[in-house]
Amino acid sequence: MTPTLQDVLQAAKRIQPYANRPPVMTNHSLNQRVGAEVHLKCENFQKVGAFKFRGACNAVFSLSDAEAARGVCTHSSGNHAQALALAAQLRGIAAHIVMPENAPQVKKDAVAGYGGQITYCAPTLEAREATLRRVVERTGAAVVHPYDDERVIAGQGTAALELLADVPDLDVIIAPVGGGGLLSGTSIAATETKKGIRVIGAEPEMADDAFRSLQAGKVLPSENPKTIADGLLTSLSERTFSILQKRVEQIVTVGEQGIAQAMKFVWERAKIVIEPSAAVAIGVLWEKKIDLTRLKVGVILSGGNVDLGKLPW
Amino acid sequence: MTPTLQDVLQAAKRIQPYANRPPVMTNHSLNQRVGAEVHLKCENFQKVGAFKFRGACNAVFSLSDAEAARGVCTHSSGNHAQALALAAQLRGIAAHIVMPENAPQVKKDAVAGYGGQITYCAPTLEAREATLRRVVERTGAAVVHPYDDERVIAGQGTAALELLADVPDLDVIIAPVGGGGLLSGTSIAATETKKGIRVIGAEPEMADDAFRSLQAGKVLPSENPKTIADGLLTSLSERTFSILQKRVEQIVTVGEQGIAQAMKFVWERAKIVIEPSAAVAIGVLWEKKIDLTRLKVGVILSGGNVDLGKLPW
Repeated sequence: MTPTLQDVLQAAKRIQPYANRPPVMTNHSLNQRVGAEVHLKCENFQKVGAFKFRGACNAVFSLSDAEAARGVCTHSSGNHAQALALAAQLRGIAAHIVMPENAPQVKKDAVAGYGGQITYCAPTLEAREATLRRVVERTGAAVVHPYDDERVIAGQGTAALELLADVPDLDVIIAPVGGGGLLSGTSIAATETKKGIRVIGAEPEMADDAFRSLQAGKVLPSENPKTIADGLLTSLSERTFSILQKRVEQIVTVGEQGIAQAMKFVWERAKIVIEPSAAVAIGVLWEKKIDLTRLKVGVILSGGNVDLGKLPW
Repeated sequence: MTPTLQDVLQAAKRIQPYANRPPVMTNHSLNQRVGAEVHLKCENFQKVGAFKFRGACNAVFSLSDAEAARGVCTHSSGNHAQALALAAQLRGIAAHIVMPENAPQVKKDAVAGYGGQITYCAPTLEAREATLRRVVERTGAAVVHPYDDERVIAGQGTAALELLADVPDLDVIIAPVGGGGLLSGTSIAATETKKGIRVIGAEPEMADDAFRSLQAGKVLPSENPKTIADGLLTSLSERTFSILQKRVEQIVTVGEQGIAQAMKFVWERAKIVIEPSAAVAIGVLWEKKIDLTRLKVGVILSGGNVDLGKLPW
């Protein structure tokens, strides 16, 4: 099923007691550098440091009490794992997280810190999926996919709702695209709330499946992509593809250097910590592949979870 | 002369059209880690990335038209130089900045970017002062000292005014201390606005002249101090000493490792870029040398200007 604006509005109500409402920031230097009026929706200030909390929270609090009693589960080593663990903790239920055994210690610690119960597996997609199936068989927990889930998509759309409530006269919204959950939710919320608004996806050149898929008119997954924007390695599902095909104007790709430069500029000038995946959306403005001069542009800064010991400059 | 609350209130009015009013942020992880309710006044989001803009702006806009016509000048290679250059640019007057010829290129560029006219000198205090005197003789420009100036002190106090307007029931305010301009202004604004509020100075152990001076009851400057908190290398003047002696409860010193750890924690958890000098104030909570458990603590995060290529971890 494809979520509707109504689903996004309900998600906003559902997560409101739990989620932060991060501010929308502007920065003079950034505006000068890119030649547009840029409004930054700071999801790096969201719970767990990323927009992912919105979707996970909406999914967890959408469950009936009987479903919830069996807990939730997913396979992820990224922000979604932490988000689902925290959302489950807030509802007082179990979160079973399947993680590859070679995941960074800091990510294991973060999930465990939110009370998530980790099941390790070999670092292949097959092992992850098989392990998740066994967890479901054992516990009856509800699977919450990181993006191929209408409750998750509706939850991610609430960031754009808030952005448009704060800055109603935006011409364009840019959001990064990996599996397409954030961009799907953003495009539903934006195009249904404001007629004529342009929604643009920002994608690393090195993981450009959404760009290629929309060009080809069918899902073309990336195979073993590598990019510093490690939140955007996943590929579209049929569900997110069909939403983007209908509602997104275009996908713009950004090179690795552009991502790193945009990230550094935002740290230096706006004084906020954003992760490379968030910088991809700034990179669209930075590299000027499309003309957004003098427009009012909203950017969803997706998160701020970075390893400070491994910065790309 | 010592500024009064009235001076701070006038400064607030004077700089209001030009200065940002940065938000006060809270962070759950930080509160848990330090055991207090911490309210961060984010002067890293101030113009030029530091509170220094407040004092410089107040000084520049305090000048009569006749004085202003001859411009302003200072010797500084830090945030004050940028702040004075921008304030002068906003008033449409000249800013003459004396800088040591070995100052980092990025600082020279920043001052020049705000229209400051740089005069280089040898990297000694004597050369700086002699060069500044020659600039004054040549131009008649008004000297704006980075902290030993009542207009500057009154301007710096406006950050605490805003913090207390947003969070009126603070028990304590902590601000970093170098030359003492920020801490002096903060202590005047806080103690005159809220009876019984405690004002605490945060100082690097490696540049602890304020700590030693208040203990000894007289100004004891540091000689060639070295600390990663490079905004706090200067020593108190007689003026700032006498204000702190009257209004500040105590100075707490923080070691280099504590500064670096506090800084990293704020970047990682609060997702904001703060400079080491700002982290010193967090370090006071971090190292728990004094008991602030369960209190409402305001912290002036003094700035966010950092060389991202040279991080202390």
